[in-house]
Amino acid sequence: MTASTGSEGTALAPRGVRPRARFGTPLVGSAPRLMLLGSGEIGREVAIEAIRLGAEVIAVDRYEHAPAMQVAHRAYVIPMTDRAALRALVESEHPDVIVPEIEQIDTNELVRLESDGWTVVPNAEATRVTMDRERIRRLAAESARVPTSRFAFADTLEEARRCAADLGFPCVFKSITSSSGHGMSVVREPGALARAYQEASEGGRVPNPRIMIEEFVRFDAEVTVLTLRHWTSAGTVATTTMAPIGHARPGTLYHESWQPAEFPSPVGDELTRIAVAVTDRLGGIGMFGVECFVRGSDVLFSEVSPRPHDTGLVTLASQWNSEFALHARAVLGFPYSGPEPTSPAAAHVILSPGTGTAPTFGGAFRGLSLPGVRLFLFGKPEGFPDRRLGVAVARGSTVQEARTKAAEAAHAVESTIRFERAAP
Amino acid sequence: MTASTGSEGTALAPRGVRPRARFGTPLVGSAPRLMLLGSGEIGREVAIEAIRLGAEVIAVDRYEHAPAMQVAHRAYVIPMTDRAALRALVESEHPDVIVPEIEQIDTNELVRLESDGWTVVPNAEATRVTMDRERIRRLAAESARVPTSRFAFADTLEEARRCAADLGFPCVFKSITSSSGHGMSVVREPGALARAYQEASEGGRVPNPRIMIEEFVRFDAEVTVLTLRHWTSAGTVATTTMAPIGHARPGTLYHESWQPAEFPSPVGDELTRIAVAVTDRLGGIGMFGVECFVRGSDVLFSEVSPRPHDTGLVTLASQWNSEFALHARAVLGFPYSGPEPTSPAAAHVILSPGTGTAPTFGGAFRGLSLPGVRLFLFGKPEGFPDRRLGVAVARGSTVQEARTKAAEAAHAVESTIRFERAAP
Repeated sequence: MTASTGSEGTALAPRGVRPRARFGTPLVGSAPRLMLLGSGEIGREVAIEAIRLGAEVIAVDRYEHAPAMQVAHRAYVIPMTDRAALRALVESEHPDVIVPEIEQIDTNELVRLESDGWTVVPNAEATRVTMDRERIRRLAAESARVPTSRFAFADTLEEARRCAADLGFPCVFKSITSSSGHGMSVVREPGALARAYQEASEGGRVPNPRIMIEEFVRFDAEVTVLTLRHWTSAGTVATTTMAPIGHARPGTLYHESWQPAEFPSPVGDELTRIAVAVTDRLGGIGMFGVECFVRGSDVLFSEVSPRPHDTGLVTLASQWNSEFALHARAVLGFPYSGPEPTSPAAAHVILSPGTGTAPTFGGAFRGLSLPGVRLFLFGKPEGFPDRRLGVAVARGSTVQEARTKAAEAAHAVESTIRFERAAP
Repeated sequence: MTASTGSEGTALAPRGVRPRARFGTPLVGSAPRLMLLGSGEIGREVAIEAIRLGAEVIAVDRYEHAPAMQVAHRAYVIPMTDRAALRALVESEHPDVIVPEIEQIDTNELVRLESDGWTVVPNAEATRVTMDRERIRRLAAESARVPTSRFAFADTLEEARRCAADLGFPCVFKSITSSSGHGMSVVREPGALARAYQEASEGGRVPNPRIMIEEFVRFDAEVTVLTLRHWTSAGTVATTTMAPIGHARPGTLYHESWQPAEFPSPVGDELTRIAVAVTDRLGGIGMFGVECFVRGSDVLFSEVSPRPHDTGLVTLASQWNSEFALHARAVLGFPYSGPEPTSPAAAHVILSPGTGTAPTFGGAFRGLSLPGVRLFLFGKPEGFPDRRLGVAVARGSTVQEARTKAAEAAHAVESTIRFERAAP
């Protein structure tokens, strides 16, 4: 059910990250200090696992009461796109390891912090490269030489029009500075070009006239290969891939995922090869989510997150060491001897039905009545459309059974969400 | 691998505990407030699972930086044996549910709080009965009518001498007010009586001249049956037992455990019957740890904890819903539709090698090199002999393999523990 490699030697070796020798106790001693930049639901699970491993966790985000803040030792609210604020906090808290959890961070400042001797995981350059669709695509296609969809870049609507004509319709317009679905749209005919260009150029992390245009891939499956760069018992760095995670989404944002997604072995081997090739170019230490399309017997690289991936929420059920436990273990400098068996499981998001503060939930009793289902509610103080407020995670005797139960539980909760204080 | 019953109707029904309908968000809204009385490693895992289910967690203990305090929303340091302090905190924090995690609580005040309308789990009377060896043994033997070892009670050394003569040597002296191994000793000959009497009468939670004397059971296996009283999807209360947990200890304190412990079905059925009979007499909602001896085809009830049990730390590896996740789910008023499959796993404690503050750990890298091993370090600010500072938990293809790995990892860490500040 899982695939593994022992790949070593990388373009971008870990900097400052070392196998962890003696360490102390949080709050009263010399525990490893882990600073989360971004404190959402992914960060919350990383925080829990880091605390279980003996770390002192400092949670940072741009708003109060973010999920990871609610379990961390200390929390700070700062704009992480403000380089001075970021540096000041790092210099006052002295983290042993800085763990970016989101993209809205001044990644140039992360590079400077790293060169000043602070440790950023997987490494500062990987956080900068992966949030730039042009750089990561060129790294994959030209440096790691893995197959991708056809693609082009355009700085104006006119250039975008020419690229679209070359690639053919439908094609996909994407902003440069995002790896999520924001700003993305499928362009089915020339009349939709102008609006799609506007969305892509304005919908990224920062407005940018340069956009990416990509062939529309008629895929059979969309897959995430969670890939861990980690220490071995011998103190070297190895890369281990997890069983493929399948996912499906009605729009462009993460909606449901399952593991294992089974493929004939040539496809499985190619998924592993691509995941290892790309992550070894990015280097460093920690969990990556490598997104690929499967089309017949072909596999195309799409994107990569230098951190635990949304679709990997399913590993809360499918793996004893979830992607969060593995990320915490790796970035704290501990070894791993995976891979491990996978249990059939699925995860299904619980979305905010609208805008308001202090969400209330009514369907949790019904959701938790289903055998094999667990709910993770994120405790986010505000909701807005498409914001994840929780996830239902299910085990089943088959992946399909787990998917059905997770969906039913998620919908039972989602359909009952209200706000104590609705938006004005 | 698991056993289940649908038992309903109890001597002591849940009071104030109801299936949970609509609830809000921690810190900004009407989340269920869960107050942990006792904030050790058991409480830490309960806190994590309660937060994942959307609760606001208040951790209380008699010392600062206790494990559960490090993940809770708020923490308080009070003497929980001080009834006024306990009541004042409850009245200021307004918990929806009070979750005793240890025995050093004024349980008479819990009974009064419950009668004033506060919710205590599993119920206040169960917390009072189970910490009194005489009351729980009489409840089991005389009311639930389950088999136990032969036993007697003595108020003086002279009475103890007569009881020991009746029961024969060796016999076991135990304090009345403790369910752990403190104050317990095996008396092999009359010359050891006086010291054993002193230990038992002074070694309980409070000094008490009355002690318990018990036949020495030459058992083949010592077993915990985790037993959950929980809501069903229909809103009734049911009792579900987990697969038996085997455990072994060099002394009287918890040391290692594994799950599943396999027995021929008459023994397995009897374990289930005893666990359900005793917990249904105690009633309420939540997890119980029912301890039994197996001797040939006989099963004898020994003790019961009205909360997750130390030996159940193995369920972090063996069950998708650990005993902590199930306790949180049940006491928050959510249903369960177990039982679920069990994976072969084991847990092995990491003990403090001496007395000091701010323990440091040197063998974690080696422990985590072993396949299938995870470490849980508790972040306790101080160590003293026999205090648990962590646990190694392992999965294996067999229970024996898991036991070997957990022991190896635990010893790798334990043998390297030092203190940043040693005891003077």
